[in-house]
Amino acid sequence: MPEQLTWHGDPVRRVAVVGAGLSGCLIATMLARRGLEVALYERRTDPRVAGAERGRSINLAISARGIDALARVGLAESALADALPMRGRTLHPKVGELGFQSYSAHGTRAINSISRATLNHALLDCAEQTPGVSVHFGHSCTGVEPATGTLTFDTPTGQVGATADLVIGADGAYSAVRRALQFREGFDFSQSFLPHGYKELTIPATADGEFALDPGSLHIWPRGSAMMIALPNVDRSFTCTLFWPKDGPGGLLTLDTPDAVTAHFAEHYPDAVPLMPALVDDFLHNPVGSLVTVRCNPWISGRVALLGDAAHAIVPFFGQGANCAFEDCVELGRCLTDARGELSAALTLYNERRKANTDAIADMALENFDEMSNKVNSAVFHWTTRARHALERVVPGYASRYELVSFTTTPYARIEGRVRRQDRLVGGVLAAAAVAGSIVLTRKARR
Amino acid sequence: MPEQLTWHGDPVRRVAVVGAGLSGCLIATMLARRGLEVALYERRTDPRVAGAERGRSINLAISARGIDALARVGLAESALADALPMRGRTLHPKVGELGFQSYSAHGTRAINSISRATLNHALLDCAEQTPGVSVHFGHSCTGVEPATGTLTFDTPTGQVGATADLVIGADGAYSAVRRALQFREGFDFSQSFLPHGYKELTIPATADGEFALDPGSLHIWPRGSAMMIALPNVDRSFTCTLFWPKDGPGGLLTLDTPDAVTAHFAEHYPDAVPLMPALVDDFLHNPVGSLVTVRCNPWISGRVALLGDAAHAIVPFFGQGANCAFEDCVELGRCLTDARGELSAALTLYNERRKANTDAIADMALENFDEMSNKVNSAVFHWTTRARHALERVVPGYASRYELVSFTTTPYARIEGRVRRQDRLVGGVLAAAAVAGSIVLTRKARR
Repeated sequence: MPEQLTWHGDPVRRVAVVGAGLSGCLIATMLARRGLEVALYERRTDPRVAGAERGRSINLAISARGIDALARVGLAESALADALPMRGRTLHPKVGELGFQSYSAHGTRAINSISRATLNHALLDCAEQTPGVSVHFGHSCTGVEPATGTLTFDTPTGQVGATADLVIGADGAYSAVRRALQFREGFDFSQSFLPHGYKELTIPATADGEFALDPGSLHIWPRGSAMMIALPNVDRSFTCTLFWPKDGPGGLLTLDTPDAVTAHFAEHYPDAVPLMPALVDDFLHNPVGSLVTVRCNPWISGRVALLGDAAHAIVPFFGQGANCAFEDCVELGRCLTDARGELSAALTLYNERRKANTDAIADMALENFDEMSNKVNSAVFHWTTRARHALERVVPGYASRYELVSFTTTPYARIEGRVRRQDRLVGGVLAAAAVAGSIVLTRKARR
Repeated sequence: MPEQLTWHGDPVRRVAVVGAGLSGCLIATMLARRGLEVALYERRTDPRVAGAERGRSINLAISARGIDALARVGLAESALADALPMRGRTLHPKVGELGFQSYSAHGTRAINSISRATLNHALLDCAEQTPGVSVHFGHSCTGVEPATGTLTFDTPTGQVGATADLVIGADGAYSAVRRALQFREGFDFSQSFLPHGYKELTIPATADGEFALDPGSLHIWPRGSAMMIALPNVDRSFTCTLFWPKDGPGGLLTLDTPDAVTAHFAEHYPDAVPLMPALVDDFLHNPVGSLVTVRCNPWISGRVALLGDAAHAIVPFFGQGANCAFEDCVELGRCLTDARGELSAALTLYNERRKANTDAIADMALENFDEMSNKVNSAVFHWTTRARHALERVVPGYASRYELVSFTTTPYARIEGRVRRQDRLVGGVLAAAAVAGSIVLTRKARR
């Protein structure tokens, strides 16, 4: 028998989820399985019919947190079947040999490359097939009244209204639901853009239908202030993303002729050029994306709660945007259970528990740009990574920051502290060993 | 002959200023005097007719920067004639004697208490009397198109449009003009609320028509996490403002009965209670204000520029909100001159020059809450202040942070560095003197 959810004692029956992206579909499915009637509203038309927007995908790298969440609705296996495991980074220098850095000690753990569209379609199918979920495309949210749970939408046939006991804003970094909270006193909010834009490019399969690069790793062309990455697709192509400061001399926006594009890539990404036959056309016609970090607090107001990018958009450099949004859904479900179905208490709990964690991954994602575009090139980084992996193999429980983020569900906010503690411990042991060694050596010398 | 302003070479004639508050009126006057046709739009009705909103004033403390700006339109003298000089802080402990801390070395420099309404009326009169300025009340801005300078307003008689070569958003912390920029990619924005609210209260003139407290100082009741201040008015009353965390046990919002209010004030502000006959009524009926810090960048987009609180709302603890907004107007005028009347270049210059300065005063204003509500109570603070004043009297050019902010027009962003440098210098001199002294003493001892 489904549990009875309440709102200050009154029964809760209807939920409105705004945004049928990754986290919107997942939370709709999860809540309907708890016996609620869920209306899922999406601004766009059905993406399974309309196809994806050009040059806006950035492949996803689904890892432990995402898999854990998808498993709860029985989607982990089928999602991973459509994905390609990447066990480390392949580094492409301007000249010289490719390098490889494993993500884990034994080289066995992988993050999983999957297209956003593929995963979104699977989640939409899943939501639609869940009893209690109704999906409404072409519904653009224009207003929310937090106190009453009243919504208004623009649709192709005119304005419509709706009311729900709970409204979930899962409508992304530029959330319309969040706008309804944004101009209230006491709503802390920030949006901060990187100077970098991104541009999507493609490495197609070779003439004989093979991958043009190793499909078992994430490819990086680290170039300091700029960087290109490539993730494999099941059709044996790679989706490349170039990150690059937009403005100023030599910025992304200054390359505006075929010759300028060709010359720039020949100089900076020489090994990629022969693999990208459509480079000039892709570069000149694909849009320039922005990279924004959004933070706000509180995420809840009356009957409204924010989730995923709507609450905490992060930059993509740790591959955690979708994983983190999925984890929000799991946490919200856990809070409902812990608050014994009292929704208002569950929302407060959700905000309290989740905020510090999403702040932590937002910071780590910003820091990781420097790691990917700069540090991976350095000998110190290379040997530190190898030293960490060596420790992981011999010190019980030792795990790097990357592994804790990608291969565990350790709360994000606890990761920095844990890494610092274990480094201090290992440092202490090594120092003690060094002292002990020098004592031994001194004694030997004295003999 | 007025200079010819241009926009990428085309002549600039019409300016729309949104917001007829302090900085809106000043910039309208300044630009009209440069020969421009200025339409000044205000959401509210004429405040000279309608009167002030209850409990929303927080008296202003006009100091050097504000006076410098007002002097440029010939208003400094008349504004100061309506103001009361405050030469320092009078501290009201829970028990014991009042304390006094001078703002400057010789006790001669003063900040000037004036009601926002009085100053706003004077500035409105001034703008209205300036040839080229038209004032439009009851015009609530609902949309701005930065590229074209097109504006839409809701008015009591319906929607109206306007177009201008330059649009200035001077419409405060919750700026409608800023909203038009806020959802564009690349617009960095944050709004951050203090947990404190504020509530306005009154100490009226005594029965025989005198000031109930010394009118020559700013009165502070420092109570750690809470604080009350009182500023004198020309009618011999004081406007008091209580700052206090809003939520939680013992928060501002929990005092909701006459008995609770009376008991709280009797415990924490015992010497003020007999001076506040309307305390309970004021407390229970005046609204609770919020304290927000707004930062954004860029302040300019196409033909739109933000100014004053719309660009950088700050908390009131350094008494610099209005002074800083007035200084924006001066800087914008200076940039017009420096860019030889080319408006687009002037706006870029204005944003570049001003942003670091307003960030600096935003930080100093936040820090000053701690100084006013906590540090002023400490013996260390008391002696440090006296030591600084002693140095100011003997070391040429030595000035405290408070003096540089309040009694000079040194750019805000240079103040921290200057204070650090002079402290290092004085510290070095004192240390050298100590060493020299000890050498002398050692020599004496050797003899």
